[in-house]
Amino acid sequence: MKLLGLSREKASEAVKNGKVVVVQFGLGKLGLPLAVATAAAGAKVIGVDISRELVEMINEGRNPLPGEPGIGDLLPRLVSEGRLMVTTDWRSAVTKGDVYVVAVPVTVEEDMRPRLGALLDVAGKISEGLEKGDLVMIETTLPLGTTRRITSLLEEKTGYRHGVDFGVVHAPERTSSGRMLKDITESYPKVVGSDSPKALEAAVGFYSAINKRGIVEVSTSLAAEAVKVFEGVYRYVNIALANELALYAENVGLNVWEVIEAANTQPYCHLHRPGAGVGGHCIPVYPRFVMYDALKRGLDLRLLNAAKAVNEHMPLHVVLMAVKALNSIGKPVRGSRILIVGLTYRAGVREYYMAPSLRVLRELKDMGAEVYGYEPAAMPEDFLKLGVEKWGGEEVDLAIIINAYREVVEDIYRGRLPAKTVLDARGIVDLERARSSGYYAIQLGRAGP
Amino acid sequence: MKLLGLSREKASEAVKNGKVVVVQFGLGKLGLPLAVATAAAGAKVIGVDISRELVEMINEGRNPLPGEPGIGDLLPRLVSEGRLMVTTDWRSAVTKGDVYVVAVPVTVEEDMRPRLGALLDVAGKISEGLEKGDLVMIETTLPLGTTRRITSLLEEKTGYRHGVDFGVVHAPERTSSGRMLKDITESYPKVVGSDSPKALEAAVGFYSAINKRGIVEVSTSLAAEAVKVFEGVYRYVNIALANELALYAENVGLNVWEVIEAANTQPYCHLHRPGAGVGGHCIPVYPRFVMYDALKRGLDLRLLNAAKAVNEHMPLHVVLMAVKALNSIGKPVRGSRILIVGLTYRAGVREYYMAPSLRVLRELKDMGAEVYGYEPAAMPEDFLKLGVEKWGGEEVDLAIIINAYREVVEDIYRGRLPAKTVLDARGIVDLERARSSGYYAIQLGRAGP
Repeated sequence: MKLLGLSREKASEAVKNGKVVVVQFGLGKLGLPLAVATAAAGAKVIGVDISRELVEMINEGRNPLPGEPGIGDLLPRLVSEGRLMVTTDWRSAVTKGDVYVVAVPVTVEEDMRPRLGALLDVAGKISEGLEKGDLVMIETTLPLGTTRRITSLLEEKTGYRHGVDFGVVHAPERTSSGRMLKDITESYPKVVGSDSPKALEAAVGFYSAINKRGIVEVSTSLAAEAVKVFEGVYRYVNIALANELALYAENVGLNVWEVIEAANTQPYCHLHRPGAGVGGHCIPVYPRFVMYDALKRGLDLRLLNAAKAVNEHMPLHVVLMAVKALNSIGKPVRGSRILIVGLTYRAGVREYYMAPSLRVLRELKDMGAEVYGYEPAAMPEDFLKLGVEKWGGEEVDLAIIINAYREVVEDIYRGRLPAKTVLDARGIVDLERARSSGYYAIQLGRAGP
Repeated sequence: MKLLGLSREKASEAVKNGKVVVVQFGLGKLGLPLAVATAAAGAKVIGVDISRELVEMINEGRNPLPGEPGIGDLLPRLVSEGRLMVTTDWRSAVTKGDVYVVAVPVTVEEDMRPRLGALLDVAGKISEGLEKGDLVMIETTLPLGTTRRITSLLEEKTGYRHGVDFGVVHAPERTSSGRMLKDITESYPKVVGSDSPKALEAAVGFYSAINKRGIVEVSTSLAAEAVKVFEGVYRYVNIALANELALYAENVGLNVWEVIEAANTQPYCHLHRPGAGVGGHCIPVYPRFVMYDALKRGLDLRLLNAAKAVNEHMPLHVVLMAVKALNSIGKPVRGSRILIVGLTYRAGVREYYMAPSLRVLRELKDMGAEVYGYEPAAMPEDFLKLGVEKWGGEEVDLAIIINAYREVVEDIYRGRLPAKTVLDARGIVDLERARSSGYYAIQLGRAGP
């Protein structure tokens, strides 16, 4: 059933009553939970992905995201009931949709240029099946202006008029790994924006059927893009602030962790935690969308530029601290054995994009260290790809803690980690306990011993 | 009764049972509510201030802070019961104290150097009455290291040893104008830090008697200084971020207010609101403490430097917007009549220190505008001092809204504000309503009409 032109109430009813066919592109960490939530709300969902392996797995009712609560229960049931089916055959899928959902990632090049290839490719595919009355919902976080670009592309390819024949809506996902389904359906209100009031009305109905926390309507697709991107910018700048304060604290002789914790007992203060840098598909990417756009406009965003400089300095600062730790036991980097605890951008999430560990790893390897990695979220093949040996309990000169893996910290307290020195870049080691267990231990954001 | 050496429980009991004499320096906007709260908790408080007028007023039981809830009820009672007395005669006061509380402000010079004169002067006065067992509590927000400097000064002047004969504690105030008493006694836990464990123990007892929300103990006086200063830095940098996003939004064609409001529906996002700049005794001052210290250390705090550049650009940006608004009605600045709504650093607070309005005012006057000020928090003499005419309803070409005075906004909606154009730098005017009431209206953080 086509939704464009329906009131929000009627659109919502249509979804709940199983009258709407959704064709969704992208079944990754975002896409699959989204498809599951949409199907669970009542829509018939056809998921499209390029990975044959993934598609087979899902159609067999097996869950490719074991770390996501709820998916394992819902997925097999939705698949067996025929409410969710997935395919690599986009050609047959695109002819069937009333609503098209886009959930393919956008990353950036080294020079911050957004990689829009996959997204524009999907838009092209949608154009081949688009019918009058259809809606296109873009869930991917986008550089400002991208929804309008896709709208124009669809108009050009189909000859249809936006807001009359079809509608494009930006409805940016607000999710975190490990709680995707909950985030999609109830953690936060859903933000939707469109340049067509008619499309917006129907989209509000569509998302009301999925998200219990309600809808935040904004005036344009541009505003919806900015909402999500600015959320990331807030995080990025505040991590930079924590990092700058950590560097200052080291110089002054403060314990930055203690200070931040005490400052945040005031409810208007939300100081973030420092660390070895910022990684992943989200937080370091969205500020780059803004910075790249500003660059093209000749606009000087000095705060964001400074935030980037500070955050990107952090892996090098960790390397310098590592050199000092080794120096304290009379060792140069060359030939030293170093364990990096945490290779992904965040503990427990198998995702390496822009992970600061990788920069630390590369610098230390370049200087001739023998580097081991401890990463419980990794698959065996990841170590090979990253060029680091999987740690098998070998004795090392230095352990650098980058991700919050508590089991390693427990080993330190029990004196069981076979390392001479410990550098805690995550603020999770009680230095006094580590030292009383015999380690030379230092921490980011504190003056050395 | 001397507190140094007592357990927290005994120190707290001593305060509640009226056995402790507190001599407090500074009875201003912070000091008076603090003295009232301390006396109300049970201590006998002798307040010292240099203003004869203020001292007379308080001793007559009259309330100099009518905008502070609770003071008007407590003050006359505490004074008449002899539990709070105030004086300009510091010499007789300093001989009587068990606990000395310091609440004199520290501001900064243009080059960011902290003005410590009044504080060091008070420390010198305290040294003349300091006895063994006394405690000194510094409530003023301090540049890092100042507590240690005052401790050394007291040791030198008295020959006593810190931590043995007397104790110095930093216990930074966490208060906002208009809710001082509530903030002191129950809004937030009290942060205390000392370089003497004995002094810290007694101070925890002292503040437990005053603050119901409990105590956050930090390891050193330096840490306590950093807690308060970093809270201010967080606010300052986040205001700079909001301002940078506002400038970007104007360029891109977004409504930054709409975007920020929607982004903050996600509970991890705390984007602040943009404006004409940052003023007052707190938020713009504390980052300067850090920046000045970093300068002396040869440390480059690029994020803070960028934040300052952005925030200090804002008054000039408002001036540029004003010029554009006048231009839209074919007027140069010279000879134009301009109303500035809000002269203080914040609506309703009679405080002009670093207020961005004053920079806007000066620039427009320098260009030959006839400037009027609307400021309900001002006393009549303030206008003369600021060099601006008090607005008496004269017709103007442009009204610039800098503080959140809603009555002016209501006048705009009713078409009763005698202004041709309106520039809203505070994000409180619904532009559509203003325009439908006949005004040419523009807003900071939005593309012009």
